[in-house]
Amino acid sequence: MEAQKTLKAGFIQFRPILGDLQSNMEKLSVLIEQAAGADLIVIPELANSGYNFKDREQAFKLAENVEKSVFIDFLIRKAKEFDLHIVSGFNEKEGDKLYNTSVLVDSNGVIGKYRKIHLFMNEFDIFEKGDIGLPVFDLGFCKMGMLICFDWIFPEVWRILALKGADLICHPSNLVLPYAQQAVPVHGMINKYYIITANRYGTERGVTFSGKSFISDTIGKTLVMAKGNEDTVKIVEMDISKSRNKMITERNHALDDRSPEDYADLVL
Amino acid sequence: MEAQKTLKAGFIQFRPILGDLQSNMEKLSVLIEQAAGADLIVIPELANSGYNFKDREQAFKLAENVEKSVFIDFLIRKAKEFDLHIVSGFNEKEGDKLYNTSVLVDSNGVIGKYRKIHLFMNEFDIFEKGDIGLPVFDLGFCKMGMLICFDWIFPEVWRILALKGADLICHPSNLVLPYAQQAVPVHGMINKYYIITANRYGTERGVTFSGKSFISDTIGKTLVMAKGNEDTVKIVEMDISKSRNKMITERNHALDDRSPEDYADLVL
Repeated sequence: MEAQKTLKAGFIQFRPILGDLQSNMEKLSVLIEQAAGADLIVIPELANSGYNFKDREQAFKLAENVEKSVFIDFLIRKAKEFDLHIVSGFNEKEGDKLYNTSVLVDSNGVIGKYRKIHLFMNEFDIFEKGDIGLPVFDLGFCKMGMLICFDWIFPEVWRILALKGADLICHPSNLVLPYAQQAVPVHGMINKYYIITANRYGTERGVTFSGKSFISDTIGKTLVMAKGNEDTVKIVEMDISKSRNKMITERNHALDDRSPEDYADLVL
Repeated sequence: MEAQKTLKAGFIQFRPILGDLQSNMEKLSVLIEQAAGADLIVIPELANSGYNFKDREQAFKLAENVEKSVFIDFLIRKAKEFDLHIVSGFNEKEGDKLYNTSVLVDSNGVIGKYRKIHLFMNEFDIFEKGDIGLPVFDLGFCKMGMLICFDWIFPEVWRILALKGADLICHPSNLVLPYAQQAVPVHGMINKYYIITANRYGTERGVTFSGKSFISDTIGKTLVMAKGNEDTVKIVEMDISKSRNKMITERNHALDDRSPEDYADLVL
């Protein structure tokens, strides 16, 4: 199955304001307009609420249900206005539980979501561990999977998304450590797919986020990278035939050359 | 269990001559002497025989049994002379089978070996797939595992060696592609251990090897790298307490934060 066209996809880097949904939507409204012409755009982790909550109570107040969300309705309107798919970090409430979620929407509504599996630092006090696995969505023009921020350090999840056929990984982030910019493109090299890491910048209650959002290709090259401290929209063209071709050499295949019978320790 | 001392370990980069065991031992003799004072040294893949065999018959003629090997006897003599551990690539014969093997010796003899699991290009016509898993050896001053060349592109094996407690991965190589120098240190970052990639250089029957052997640390930093085309011996000091500490943050652990219940697809 070959994709029909070149994919235009990229990221919006911005600085969400903790607890100010209205301001975050206003800022995103300006930036999404700059992404007009793209097929898909990725927005950072927890873009509706900000990240560094005082406590779980604050996080809960700032969370929304996917089905009844001012923020997601806004994303769907923008997806319709500019005919694009949007992936965004989202502080999700379901009953009395919170999830650090990435939602995928288009002009028709919510297509799907991913809930962060590997929680970071104080997130353990706030969010449940993701409980819906690692879905891959066939958008026609590409197959895409989602990971969130600290998931980046677990090669297992990158690999699983490749095994499920992803051409592109969308990676909303609020990175604080400086390592992901080095490591993430290598996951793309190893699995032969594109990656968009949409990071935030700015300082929130003493925590500084590193910006430098980037897009990497199927051989681990960083195609574009934002600066550390400014609003940025970057779109690149992706050749999906490159992520569909998993041959490394004429006799070596990135996935089929695996030796699962030697890998049992990975699931212990 | 804390290691008692700082480990001095490194690589020998050289250019094995195809089919000329005597010349390879003479060259290594000079280079191993330059490594005097090290605890452990790594020598490239197939250092006894060279790599780019005309056919399997030639590879078979140039292979030795581990228990009856001029080359391994030489390594053990050198290990004794300089009081060090040596890891070396080795064209191994067992019965009528060939393996692309890495042997670990000290002054007392062979401690263990690893047989390459992920074969590259024409190696499929020559070698059996490795059939002894991914052993980790406790040398007292560190725990070490071995991978060989193209194994580098499979994050599964790097992870398994971390789960088995390796502080250091010794990685004899005959790299031709230019990607490992970028990717391998990231495996070290993710798994929080040291890595020594001992590559060869030179051209053999039309195949050119990339040299640039390197050593990386527990945060993915390349500590030293050789040039692409010359004999090189590099030794660094490794602080094994850094590879024993798998905390990434005060609340995040490189291995314990894994979510194996989500990883079942890795062994399908």
